[in-house]
Amino acid sequence: MSNLKLPTRSEDFSEWYNQLVLRAELADYAPVRGCMIVRPYGWALWENIQQALDKRFKATGHVNAAFPLLIPRSFIEKEQSHVAGFSPELAVVTHGGGEELEEPLVIRPTSETIIGHAYAKWIQSYRDLPILINQWNSVVRWELRTKLFLRTLEFYWQEGHTAHATFKEAEAETRQMLDIYVDFAGKEAAVPVIPGRKSASERFAGADQTYSIEAMMGDGKALQAGTSHNLGQNFAKAFGIRYLDKEGALQFCWTTSWGLSTRFIGAIIMVHGDDQGLVLPPRLAPIQVVLVPIFKTDEEKGQVLEAAGKIRAILLSGGFRVKVDDRDGVSPGFKFNDWEMRGVPLRIEVGPKDVAKGSFVFARRDQRGKEGKYSVPLENLAGAAEKALADIHDSLYRKALSFRESNTRNPRDYAEFREAVEKGFADSHWCGSSECEQKIKEETKATMRCIPLGREQDQGACIYCGKPAPERVIFGKAY
Amino acid sequence: MSNLKLPTRSEDFSEWYNQLVLRAELADYAPVRGCMIVRPYGWALWENIQQALDKRFKATGHVNAAFPLLIPRSFIEKEQSHVAGFSPELAVVTHGGGEELEEPLVIRPTSETIIGHAYAKWIQSYRDLPILINQWNSVVRWELRTKLFLRTLEFYWQEGHTAHATFKEAEAETRQMLDIYVDFAGKEAAVPVIPGRKSASERFAGADQTYSIEAMMGDGKALQAGTSHNLGQNFAKAFGIRYLDKEGALQFCWTTSWGLSTRFIGAIIMVHGDDQGLVLPPRLAPIQVVLVPIFKTDEEKGQVLEAAGKIRAILLSGGFRVKVDDRDGVSPGFKFNDWEMRGVPLRIEVGPKDVAKGSFVFARRDQRGKEGKYSVPLENLAGAAEKALADIHDSLYRKALSFRESNTRNPRDYAEFREAVEKGFADSHWCGSSECEQKIKEETKATMRCIPLGREQDQGACIYCGKPAPERVIFGKAY
Repeated sequence: MSNLKLPTRSEDFSEWYNQLVLRAELADYAPVRGCMIVRPYGWALWENIQQALDKRFKATGHVNAAFPLLIPRSFIEKEQSHVAGFSPELAVVTHGGGEELEEPLVIRPTSETIIGHAYAKWIQSYRDLPILINQWNSVVRWELRTKLFLRTLEFYWQEGHTAHATFKEAEAETRQMLDIYVDFAGKEAAVPVIPGRKSASERFAGADQTYSIEAMMGDGKALQAGTSHNLGQNFAKAFGIRYLDKEGALQFCWTTSWGLSTRFIGAIIMVHGDDQGLVLPPRLAPIQVVLVPIFKTDEEKGQVLEAAGKIRAILLSGGFRVKVDDRDGVSPGFKFNDWEMRGVPLRIEVGPKDVAKGSFVFARRDQRGKEGKYSVPLENLAGAAEKALADIHDSLYRKALSFRESNTRNPRDYAEFREAVEKGFADSHWCGSSECEQKIKEETKATMRCIPLGREQDQGACIYCGKPAPERVIFGKAY
Repeated sequence: MSNLKLPTRSEDFSEWYNQLVLRAELADYAPVRGCMIVRPYGWALWENIQQALDKRFKATGHVNAAFPLLIPRSFIEKEQSHVAGFSPELAVVTHGGGEELEEPLVIRPTSETIIGHAYAKWIQSYRDLPILINQWNSVVRWELRTKLFLRTLEFYWQEGHTAHATFKEAEAETRQMLDIYVDFAGKEAAVPVIPGRKSASERFAGADQTYSIEAMMGDGKALQAGTSHNLGQNFAKAFGIRYLDKEGALQFCWTTSWGLSTRFIGAIIMVHGDDQGLVLPPRLAPIQVVLVPIFKTDEEKGQVLEAAGKIRAILLSGGFRVKVDDRDGVSPGFKFNDWEMRGVPLRIEVGPKDVAKGSFVFARRDQRGKEGKYSVPLENLAGAAEKALADIHDSLYRKALSFRESNTRNPRDYAEFREAVEKGFADSHWCGSSECEQKIKEETKATMRCIPLGREQDQGACIYCGKPAPERVIFGKAY
């Protein structure tokens, strides 16, 4: 832990991010290039994300399971686009128990293949459908340019894999899970996202349709924060996932997969963080309220720690996640900075005057300085803490949404488009051709993030070629 | 799901186990030799085990984190006994991203080395101690003879890793975690265990002292169900984990590690299971109460399903894990057998006569036949279910303890010893020499399971060589 300042976000957003992750002790570099250690504070955040998502998965009928880490290399080759997409990124196990293996194994880059193999065995008839399974695990993809949480060789995620009797059911599942990601992002992480459909070139390797949620980071760039794929019958045909329908005819299943990873922690950092460090959304924060005792004499210390203990007990019984920072040898000012770096939403200062008055100073992480500070009498403490956390959540969400809106433009021409994607999103007409998409990418580095769902069709001219375009889509530079 | 009978335990215990695991849909074989798929029902059981342990870890000040899967091979070689123990079992990654790696990586067989490397970086002074970190993950050991849950190439577990300023603290931690395993096994899984110290030959590779909990399975064999290691300064010296003490002198830390794995599911199966299948301890059972509707006509079906829905709501609001088996096309008898195979502790039968009387038949899984069946009026349902589950837990524990006691002998001579370890445990004097231990193993296949803790010293003569022996220890054949 250190009290050194971060580079500001406007100075160097990338370095601000890197240093913040280390200083807030969210993660650290591992000895193997491109791997990360998720430290306890970062993992506690991930555990809260897991709980918030898992609750939603189970409420919609999904169950968890665990499929193996090691996959025969031949499995990856069974689905044509899948092998093209994942072959270059594989980690390959060639030796086990001191001997060379007959067939090399790969560490899962994702589990469609091994799960497809199991589903083919488990599913016999329409009575076995749907199968709705999720797993929490890590996967390995051999990335060359890595960044903590955003892109690492090994990362943590959940991957849901379902099998259905009809296309319609599979598509409904794909969309339901996308809706769950939207709901989670907004209600738990205070991150506004745009749900939409991906273009063919940005689809998951092996999917008929990929949907994603896209968020705008503090530097105006886009981050794909969760994806949901309708895999059609591609994996069903590659792995022979079939069922006997009610008429006794053998049919291929329709499958889906959907995932959200520790990358989302990167989104939380870059959406809410400020020049003082992390700003955590209250519903996911490992510590929601930190109590900082302030004292000079031993007598004061006794009073102040007793009061802090009392406040802690009140808040704990109210269901809050609370910590008393009773470290010796560091000043209150140091502690303030330290917990601001770690993004704790609410600080309560406990000094001798506060104890005497029976009233304690609340300091909101999201509003530094005077306007975020106010005194709360002991008897209102739990209610006031609840209100403060709810307000912080709402305020973080509104701020992020307003930032995204003010950095999203509807450019009138390609020149304005180029300016728009330098600072944020361009919400532009696109003819739908891969050629225009590719040219735009080459010339501006912006990619088609998604075709937003649930908007009205809005006929126009493609921002690149001028041909008729059925709707507007989101372009942006992406992480 | 099938209603076929299992082999009985006395016919073929091993085959009874294998078939039970598959039929109860706890796990399945994976396409890679020796790997397993933990199916949703098995994983739900593991999730309940995780929660019960995690609660205890957090209550004693531990936090979770995540260290990488991939470890440079050179790390394994830094601690002398560690490399000797684990080298033969390693899975080695030689290629990544299409290229041969400069240094091969191993998939973690356990994480002392990579965590030692991180601790060396994170720990500076006595103020940073103790570090109390746990992680939930999977590890890979290239085993030759495998069996679902008991010994698989990849298995799931938690591994705790702590660093301390003194030997005394490290030893206290090692023993505390052993106590937590004992508490968990008895109170949650109804599995009585013997906590004890391992002999030098059975120690973890790199530990100064290994403690374990040992349980007796239904065939009289021993299963090591959890271990806790005092690693002394071995890893601290190998990885340079040092701290500045209060006097400013640089000291090596003292470290510990402790783990409990999906192997414990094997213990639950083999301690409580009977010839009808699995018998789950109520506190860990994914489904604690199953409701089976019984009807002939459509009118009865309506009444019966309505009542089942009402009972379900009552039990859910009481915090029970409940399922209504409303499958069409299978008979109540089939359902009874099916849920008995899956070990659900309590079944409630809901038929038209029960609805008319407002009283429903409870059937305990652990007492089949008449004595486990009784009728409970609707208004007492939640209380009666709570009592039934508590009684089942106690009864399972007592039964297992009494089985262990009646299969543990204090043999007077080596001939009796040989008989004892054919059927169960021998609680015998042992002089402490590795030679006697080795001879006994060669001649009887029994190993020294542990030197039980907390018993009075009991001077005697070694069962093998007759020399003075300070205490009695547990010998048995082990899984």
